[in-house]
Amino acid sequence: MPAVMARRNYIFDTIRTVIQKYGYVEIQTPAMENLSTLTGKYGDEGDQLIFKILNSDDYLAKANVEALEAKDSKKLLSSISKRALRYDLTVPFARYVVQNQNDIIFPFKRFQIQPVWRADRPQKNRYREFYQCDVDVIGSDSLLLELEIIQILDEVFRDLKLNVVIKINNRKILRGLAQYIGVEDRMTDLVVAIDKIDKVGLEGVLKELSGKGFSADELKKVDELLSTDSDDLARITSLVESSEEGRKGLEEVNYVIDGSNEQGLKSAKIEFDFSLARGLNYYTGTIIEVVGEDFPVSIGGGGRYDDLTGVFGLKDMSGIGVSFGADRIYNLLEDKGLFPEKLGVSTQIMFVNLGDAEAKYCLGLVAELRANGISCELYPDSAKMKKQMKYADGKNVELVAIVGETEMGHINRMVKVKNMTTGDQVTQTFKKLISDLKQ
Amino acid sequence: MPAVMARRNYIFDTIRTVIQKYGYVEIQTPAMENLSTLTGKYGDEGDQLIFKILNSDDYLAKANVEALEAKDSKKLLSSISKRALRYDLTVPFARYVVQNQNDIIFPFKRFQIQPVWRADRPQKNRYREFYQCDVDVIGSDSLLLELEIIQILDEVFRDLKLNVVIKINNRKILRGLAQYIGVEDRMTDLVVAIDKIDKVGLEGVLKELSGKGFSADELKKVDELLSTDSDDLARITSLVESSEEGRKGLEEVNYVIDGSNEQGLKSAKIEFDFSLARGLNYYTGTIIEVVGEDFPVSIGGGGRYDDLTGVFGLKDMSGIGVSFGADRIYNLLEDKGLFPEKLGVSTQIMFVNLGDAEAKYCLGLVAELRANGISCELYPDSAKMKKQMKYADGKNVELVAIVGETEMGHINRMVKVKNMTTGDQVTQTFKKLISDLKQ
Repeated sequence: MPAVMARRNYIFDTIRTVIQKYGYVEIQTPAMENLSTLTGKYGDEGDQLIFKILNSDDYLAKANVEALEAKDSKKLLSSISKRALRYDLTVPFARYVVQNQNDIIFPFKRFQIQPVWRADRPQKNRYREFYQCDVDVIGSDSLLLELEIIQILDEVFRDLKLNVVIKINNRKILRGLAQYIGVEDRMTDLVVAIDKIDKVGLEGVLKELSGKGFSADELKKVDELLSTDSDDLARITSLVESSEEGRKGLEEVNYVIDGSNEQGLKSAKIEFDFSLARGLNYYTGTIIEVVGEDFPVSIGGGGRYDDLTGVFGLKDMSGIGVSFGADRIYNLLEDKGLFPEKLGVSTQIMFVNLGDAEAKYCLGLVAELRANGISCELYPDSAKMKKQMKYADGKNVELVAIVGETEMGHINRMVKVKNMTTGDQVTQTFKKLISDLKQ
Repeated sequence: MPAVMARRNYIFDTIRTVIQKYGYVEIQTPAMENLSTLTGKYGDEGDQLIFKILNSDDYLAKANVEALEAKDSKKLLSSISKRALRYDLTVPFARYVVQNQNDIIFPFKRFQIQPVWRADRPQKNRYREFYQCDVDVIGSDSLLLELEIIQILDEVFRDLKLNVVIKINNRKILRGLAQYIGVEDRMTDLVVAIDKIDKVGLEGVLKELSGKGFSADELKKVDELLSTDSDDLARITSLVESSEEGRKGLEEVNYVIDGSNEQGLKSAKIEFDFSLARGLNYYTGTIIEVVGEDFPVSIGGGGRYDDLTGVFGLKDMSGIGVSFGADRIYNLLEDKGLFPEKLGVSTQIMFVNLGDAEAKYCLGLVAELRANGISCELYPDSAKMKKQMKYADGKNVELVAIVGETEMGHINRMVKVKNMTTGDQVTQTFKKLISDLKQ
């Protein structure tokens, strides 16, 4: 619906305006990618949720006969579907960078705002089609970019009037902690489990790790660790001291937090949180997550990756990116009443249609208003006044102009103007109306 | 690529700005529609070109066994695919109007700018995914809307600096001509054939109609008719005189052309063209087509329909709409060099990175510039000067700032600024730089 569009555009325009001040350029990628590009990038569950496109024409002609006879949907797939709808913006971006590497100027600062599709069962706040909004820089490992991304987050959420906390961690710290616990070889298990602590609690994490074969001693260390305050930098420092990678991670986190504070964030708070893991395997350094100050959900996040494009054949491209959770931001702004009031009001003034002669006369007036950049309408039919007023009211048009014989006959073009909010009615010159509306 | 995006956005922003002045609101519909919603709306060929989405999970479990065994792709389809990608914006719009009829305020003025997908073999100027941009009013049969749509076309193409001719015809005139020829029962054959005259010539049209069983006498009349100048209103008037519908069509065309001329078009020319047919069956009144003054291709068009939503169960909804041929407009603007020069230049000034201390100092400067709405970057690495300059050059950044020890030590914050176009270099205060860039 138009009102939803206007609100969504408000969010994206706010983000776009900020990002562009940092020299990022917008790209779009096609809705369809080769199925082989997407398969295997999101885990088994993700593969299931990818929408596959049936090949055109006589798709069964080239179908895998064996799979067809066995009614094996999974096995048949690649022989009847070559393409799929993008599942996120990250993988298409990586594919795009590799494919266009000779035309791209690195470091490449890009943003992308497009829908993605997932074959999930639709439920509240989860849709089959939803927008993602990603900001990335690829081709530099400079920590200045961490500072920049945090500034962007700070500025966007300030402009949206949302008070947020930007939580920071580093994959290298998590690796250091895994070394301390003695499970570096099971780093992924550890990260995936810790990532769920908000949902399943400490008990749940320990249970999951126990199921994965963590020993009693290892579990004890995880227990101790997770009982630590999540922003206790001193304690974490002591734990990862012996790990070179852990020390490097701490150094980076300190640089990012100190640098952000030195620069001065405009509205957001920045906080260390060692329990921040983010499940995605491709992060290698800084991890970022944005949550509301008074609501615990993530409304944005990302991190640094060292090898996003490696799978497509382009090695050694460090980058950092964040994604804005557009739907969640939308819901929050709605709940908190933070959308600007006049959003999506398209028509400043509507002219009532009193008949052919009056309508013809009014055509000249609306043309003149539009030439002055004012958005206006002439009701297309000489319907009953009540119906026309209802139309104006339904569209949230604030002013309605009525031009009848008296006004048309006047030497200075006169217009009767009714304010739909206050009910006030004044007769004024058209010239005055233009200058009022232009303000 | 970013440059393409910027140019495409330029076209859509131009269109959007004009349309909004007329009180139209933007909507979007999901990429996926039910396959049954789309099937049968675009003819057999169209049905073939619709991208179908494979059902999720074990799609073969519910597949039509008979069709599977017979390897009948067509018959199997509906049992393994429930959804499809939209093929145009018109059918989804009709579905949307019917579905939301209780929430919509009629007459409903909407525009929609979204990609559509067709399983065509890609070739020059024909893509599998391309944008459509549609403007419609539904829920009124007032001819004032014809005038409004023509004004919108006029204004958009003036703003795009393209000289165009808006060609007008009316389906009722075509029906009157069919009556004159005596083939009212074969109206569709006639319209479809006439529509191809630009491609296949008069001979081709006659040949096609002959193949469809038109008699020698009928063909003679078609021949005579099509040998008439396409804008010879007097001649057409005499031919359809005896047809009530034909006369009604003429009356409407005259109203639209006279009304447009009285109002005064800003840049476009308006012309009657009885050979304008537009193949689509749903048009019932005015038909509109926009061609360049010095190039014969259609870059926009549409018309009035009386029963777009009938197929989805909502009768008696007259409407009128036009579609902008975004890709063709893009190519034309490119060929004619009509895109604004500075399009897609995202960064006004880039700060060279001379090392940690300098970079840190520059962070404050770029933050201040951005607070003033100026888009700028600090190069993230202290790479070789040549590399940094190459980056600025590649991104079309006009100004490069160099801040070294000398500038940092100065009591008034000084900045060395190099103009990348002229090569000129000046040292100035940061304050002066801000005020220069803000202008």
